[in-house]
Amino acid sequence: MRAISLRPMTRTLALAALAALPLSSPASAHDLERERLLQAQAEALEDAVAWDILEDLTTEVGPRLGGTPAEARARAWATERLTALGFANVRVEDYRMPTWVRGEEKARLTGPYPQDLALTALGNSGSTGPAGLTAEVVGYVDYAAFLADDPANQAGRIVFISNAMPRNQDGSGYSMPFGAPRWVGPNEAAKRGAAAIVVRSIGTDHNRTPHTGNTSFEEGVDPIPAAALAVPDAEQLMRVLERAETAVRMELLLTPRRLGMQPSGNVIAEVPGRDPSAKKVLVGCHLDSWDNAPGVFDDGAGCAIVAAAAKRVMDMGTPARTIEIVWFGAEEVGLWGARDFAERHDGTDYHVVAESDFGADRVWKVTTDLGEHRRAEADALRAALAPLGIASGDYDQAGGADVGPLRAEGAPGLSLRQDGTRYFDLHHTANDTLDKVDPAQLRQNVAAWTTMLLVMAGPVE
Amino acid sequence: MRAISLRPMTRTLALAALAALPLSSPASAHDLERERLLQAQAEALEDAVAWDILEDLTTEVGPRLGGTPAEARARAWATERLTALGFANVRVEDYRMPTWVRGEEKARLTGPYPQDLALTALGNSGSTGPAGLTAEVVGYVDYAAFLADDPANQAGRIVFISNAMPRNQDGSGYSMPFGAPRWVGPNEAAKRGAAAIVVRSIGTDHNRTPHTGNTSFEEGVDPIPAAALAVPDAEQLMRVLERAETAVRMELLLTPRRLGMQPSGNVIAEVPGRDPSAKKVLVGCHLDSWDNAPGVFDDGAGCAIVAAAAKRVMDMGTPARTIEIVWFGAEEVGLWGARDFAERHDGTDYHVVAESDFGADRVWKVTTDLGEHRRAEADALRAALAPLGIASGDYDQAGGADVGPLRAEGAPGLSLRQDGTRYFDLHHTANDTLDKVDPAQLRQNVAAWTTMLLVMAGPVE
Repeated sequence: MRAISLRPMTRTLALAALAALPLSSPASAHDLERERLLQAQAEALEDAVAWDILEDLTTEVGPRLGGTPAEARARAWATERLTALGFANVRVEDYRMPTWVRGEEKARLTGPYPQDLALTALGNSGSTGPAGLTAEVVGYVDYAAFLADDPANQAGRIVFISNAMPRNQDGSGYSMPFGAPRWVGPNEAAKRGAAAIVVRSIGTDHNRTPHTGNTSFEEGVDPIPAAALAVPDAEQLMRVLERAETAVRMELLLTPRRLGMQPSGNVIAEVPGRDPSAKKVLVGCHLDSWDNAPGVFDDGAGCAIVAAAAKRVMDMGTPARTIEIVWFGAEEVGLWGARDFAERHDGTDYHVVAESDFGADRVWKVTTDLGEHRRAEADALRAALAPLGIASGDYDQAGGADVGPLRAEGAPGLSLRQDGTRYFDLHHTANDTLDKVDPAQLRQNVAAWTTMLLVMAGPVE
Repeated sequence: MRAISLRPMTRTLALAALAALPLSSPASAHDLERERLLQAQAEALEDAVAWDILEDLTTEVGPRLGGTPAEARARAWATERLTALGFANVRVEDYRMPTWVRGEEKARLTGPYPQDLALTALGNSGSTGPAGLTAEVVGYVDYAAFLADDPANQAGRIVFISNAMPRNQDGSGYSMPFGAPRWVGPNEAAKRGAAAIVVRSIGTDHNRTPHTGNTSFEEGVDPIPAAALAVPDAEQLMRVLERAETAVRMELLLTPRRLGMQPSGNVIAEVPGRDPSAKKVLVGCHLDSWDNAPGVFDDGAGCAIVAAAAKRVMDMGTPARTIEIVWFGAEEVGLWGARDFAERHDGTDYHVVAESDFGADRVWKVTTDLGEHRRAEADALRAALAPLGIASGDYDQAGGADVGPLRAEGAPGLSLRQDGTRYFDLHHTANDTLDKVDPAQLRQNVAAWTTMLLVMAGPVE
């Protein structure tokens, strides 16, 4: 295993590559292209644009929940900033979406060991009403144990599911199996007649900043109050359940509201290519965030990275293909922007689609799903990214929530996978703030996306 | 510098010391005493009592603010546990104290960049009333800048002081200068006519779990609302102030209440010594905690450590001097327990007084203030602690808030100084929870306190 030290290694490699160019003979076209790439990477590693976007968006707008006035302020801010950066055809594509907003949230064990617990409502949670509710807690170590138990033990009670999310570089396990209590637990608990459900946060930190996140209820199922306990509080509740000799009772207050259909939108900008008939390259992120933090890792950073990279390419000249920058709306609360975008646009119009939505830490691996006939292009991308310390991954795999609907329509995809080792310490929590960002790793992302655009939308002339 | 690896090194040293005893000749009395000490340390490094006390207290009682029913539950719990552990003369010394309790707490910037900020009221904060207050924010980089400004710029406004607390192993700077905004800022701001004051948390973490802590107002000064912003929020507010072109306004809601005189108490237990006329050894901690966490580092750990150490000595036999264990009440909110204790007891009755109140991480240094005539005893203590990786510090210095009043009456003191590198990440925040404890370091504390008691209260027969 080679230790990767981001900037020093990359700059050294870039300079070494430049020095290795034969001085006594004319450089080949290939050498010149390589030289230009390494130069672009070295410059991108000094990027200041991404930091500025990220700091300004998260300071001047702050939290920006989908469908709310805060998200509308973010669209106005984004339109102004993308225009100021010099992009073409900056516009908002509006849509409307069902909007949920948080209310009060409090939990207290009333017995046998009275104490408050830190928790936060999941998106789409039902309300306890302003008076709250008090019920006995029935606890399970994981979702399977909850499913296996007799619903008669759950009816009228507060179900607690306590599985722990493990820390993985690639985020493995977040959706399933470890996210099950959040994704599908509330719906299942509602069907079983539970009064409410609390789950251990689907996160890897030990801070008392619980992880929110969306859940959903089937048509016809009345949403019950559903919340995530902070990890220390889930552990505390488990200890309490293990030792209590009388029923453990919890007083729960959650008063979220549904505001009906509200305005949201996608913000789009372009770097026009030389060939308007050529398929486009889409780079995306999501502009909305959860309401409990300024949304830095999730996903202000993604928007900063893709815009800064597109600007670097634009400043080098005109690419062959048009680059489309999409700052999607309302991702967290149900992919409303992604779905609207895919309805208006055709996935087959894209040469490739890619999004940045896994924090601000370094890109460590590239995967592609371009089809076997584009293997050479996939390999060229890998060769171009290697100087940045980025490993080669699968050739038949690419992810991304917001580009998902376009991918389903046939758009080729690729992923510049970010190191998610600490992503689930921050995401969906109040701790998703600017101080968490390592500027050197943010710049490495810009260099990786610049490189990707030079390969996929190039050559730049 | 030698790297200190706690348990392995200590156990190896202890075994090596045992092995080094001359097998072919009778061991001297000194050798036998040393052997017994090393054996006691090795056993203390396997201690389970401290963890059990800490887990049980913080689970079954949880947060326990001075003067509240939760602190009363803690006294009942403590009396039962100290009795069950076999200590003698377990009792509560009651007193009454003015009691302050937290209410609602919310802050929101209303312009020019609307967003919520995370903050928590300081102990003794005034109330905004249920309607809250809205005022312009005037910010200062530190306490000196606040003092230097014209009070006319502060009257009717919300004063914000933003100095950062540095991370030091020994906690240097917590009281002064970096704690000044919290300790004396609110009183000074009130005298200057400020509507309220918010300070950057006096802490070293970057979590949105703000640090509470006491402040005080002079007689005749009406308490104003006073709160600490979480560190990320203080940084956010500073960024907002730096870039805002119009007045920054904050809406503040803090509704703490004063409950008048309420019951509190110190819980006391003893290991009787062979000589009832000999001066006693007092080991202390504080049983109360802030209300926002179960008070694990501050100071459940201290109570667990001193009681576990005293029990180890008791289980070895009878010490020469009586060991008095004092779990002080109401430390956080004004040292009410310490003051009551010093009124009832005489500092000159103690051979030495010491307290554990700096978390659960390892002891790294010993300091003493026993007087020059007890230099040999001070040196013997240092020699006994060295196998645990504990360095020798000053001979004229000992600290501790709860033993302060006894020290002022003439009690000799000593300090087993804990590594505070991460103490100010946790103390006075919601994050002061059990999961933060490193059991090996907790056990090293037990070994250090056991050692201290063997030296200062011994010999045990």
